Amino acid sequence: MKIAVDAMGGDFAPGVVIEGLSLSLPLFPQCEFLLVGHREKVAFYLEKYGLAGHPRITQVHAESVCEMSDPSTISLRGKKDSSITVCARLLKDKSADAMVTPGHTGATVAATKVLVRTLPGVDRPALAASMPTKKQPGRFILMDAGANVDCQPLNLAQFAVMGSVYAEYLFKIKNPRIGLLSVGGEDSKGNDLTKETFKLLEKMPIRFVGNIEPTAAFDGEVDVLVSDGFSGNVLLKTAEGLAHSTVAWLKRAITRNAMRTLGGIFAQNAFRELKAIGASDEIGGAPLMGLNGVCIIGHGSSTPRAVYNAIRVAAECVEFGVLDRVVQNVKECGVAVESHKVPASSAAPAPEK
Amino acid sequence: MKIAVDAMGGDFAPGVVIEGLSLSLPLFPQCEFLLVGHREKVAFYLEKYGLAGHPRITQVHAESVCEMSDPSTISLRGKKDSSITVCARLLKDKSADAMVTPGHTGATVAATKVLVRTLPGVDRPALAASMPTKKQPGRFILMDAGANVDCQPLNLAQFAVMGSVYAEYLFKIKNPRIGLLSVGGEDSKGNDLTKETFKLLEKMPIRFVGNIEPTAAFDGEVDVLVSDGFSGNVLLKTAEGLAHSTVAWLKRAITRNAMRTLGGIFAQNAFRELKAIGASDEIGGAPLMGLNGVCIIGHGSSTPRAVYNAIRVAAECVEFGVLDRVVQNVKECGVAVESHKVPASSAAPAPEK
Repeated sequence: MKIAVDAMGGDFAPGVVIEGLSLSLPLFPQCEFLLVGHREKVAFYLEKYGLAGHPRITQVHAESVCEMSDPSTISLRGKKDSSITVCARLLKDKSADAMVTPGHTGATVAATKVLVRTLPGVDRPALAASMPTKKQPGRFILMDAGANVDCQPLNLAQFAVMGSVYAEYLFKIKNPRIGLLSVGGEDSKGNDLTKETFKLLEKMPIRFVGNIEPTAAFDGEVDVLVSDGFSGNVLLKTAEGLAHSTVAWLKRAITRNAMRTLGGIFAQNAFRELKAIGASDEIGGAPLMGLNGVCIIGHGSSTPRAVYNAIRVAAECVEFGVLDRVVQNVKECGVAVESHKVPASSAAPAPEK
Repeated sequence: MKIAVDAMGGDFAPGVVIEGLSLSLPLFPQCEFLLVGHREKVAFYLEKYGLAGHPRITQVHAESVCEMSDPSTISLRGKKDSSITVCARLLKDKSADAMVTPGHTGATVAATKVLVRTLPGVDRPALAASMPTKKQPGRFILMDAGANVDCQPLNLAQFAVMGSVYAEYLFKIKNPRIGLLSVGGEDSKGNDLTKETFKLLEKMPIRFVGNIEPTAAFDGEVDVLVSDGFSGNVLLKTAEGLAHSTVAWLKRAITRNAMRTLGGIFAQNAFRELKAIGASDEIGGAPLMGLNGVCIIGHGSSTPRAVYNAIRVAAECVEFGVLDRVVQNVKECGVAVESHKVPASSAAPAPEK
């Protein structure tokens, strides 16, 4: 199995990525790695981590990098030689079975949508983010977390199927519970999009549990929460924003006087535990489901451990046969589209992570 | 000034509401109260709190109560004699200048949209929820938090104006910063609705600061965050869900061993402080802006202090001249609609809180 790894992606590239790769090499002997990035910079870190000349690492040069401040279309228009674009091309050519990038989410979505395209029957790929639930270590999959800002009911029906496949892999369960993100739990609740989607989902051979509010999703009532990419991204970013706020509030509250500060020192491991729930180190990254290739997008602030886990998820998704399962399930659920060309609109800028 | 108070609204009605009213009476001598609810039940609690026969309290009987489990349309279809519907009718008849309910949000939206209708020039009312930012005691106003699940760009433009008026009152500032909820900070980001709305907002004489992600809103970059009611409700409920999860996570982490538990005891006031940030006691409730009458909707779990503050906000909104300011600003911003009849679609079920 060949995995293309974007060495230049993320805030601490390429050092962090190559350190993550060094953790992966002994554990995934079945994998060969195409390490994509600037020749000299990558070579320097390969040397540093004692990986120079490693028989299962092949360097692939990429001249430029999609910076976090770049627009999403950069991977297709301004920087066609970026590490993300090169990874997408390797995936397209089937030179790689999977790609992993802790880089620019929007640029990755844009490049892969156009270059790699979708699987037969799939209209659009969607980002499957995993969120922690109240009952730890529970999680639910948010699908789509931001790849498609405007969706049709059929897209959401396909997200349900793809999310279901990913949940079967990630949670090692059969028949995951699928909920539709809405503004109330009753069947009649929602906007035009969710009402039409509801009608599709209830007819499909999936375990559809109905409309679900974010509060219920955090309570652990679903395994997959289906949403358009706009609302899904609002959910994701709200959780991120509030988590940052909570850390700031807690820090200030706990340092307000000596007694509290002492308490904070005694309980510091509890705070570390709390912080780890929010961190995505053990999840590694979010797959962009529905592409004709496995693509795992990590967080820009990925640690080596997160990179290692993103590589693990990529390898496991290939071995699980995620692509074939998506094609088959989309067909069996009666929601396959005939042509799977990328519609013009979906090449538009996608959100950054 | 006359304020209609829904005595039956909320989880602990009517006791909590009447206790909240008892706090308000000495502080708002300019207010007379129409206390709406079941005759005997309300009388019992008036007696209990020593308010029986109070010269500034008039009891108004309402036979039924909209339960939290009822659909939103209940106030118009099944329970036309509910305390919410009676309050809405008092507001419609101008028998009351304002109404306050800690009851069913969806039922209140439905009843007031149809009975009270919107102000001249305003197409639809919107719920203005206030959210805490990272920098305490900072807050931002989320507008619409859930009254309209499907919106047009003009609706969002009006929400911006109405949110601006409310921010001027609540934060005591001039020219509040208005942001548009989107999936990225750049001007080009967003879905069809936000892109069209962006074009309207940038032409209006308001302080429009562009597209804003939830993370930036929690960082305190705006005073008003404009959104359709679906995405706004997703934001609100995600914050609520994650806050509950965080409390559960923290409790478990802190009680895992004796050292942490001891630390937790030392720091317990810090946790109380943290919890208070999320509570809406000092805000009291969210106004439904754009109605032809002041309507404050409190949380179902309102404490007497929250009820007191909801009454305070209602009285202050009347004194601030919120209604006239909305009419004037909507006109000055060039976003007034000619007819302000309630469109058929907006009488549809609105989300519950």
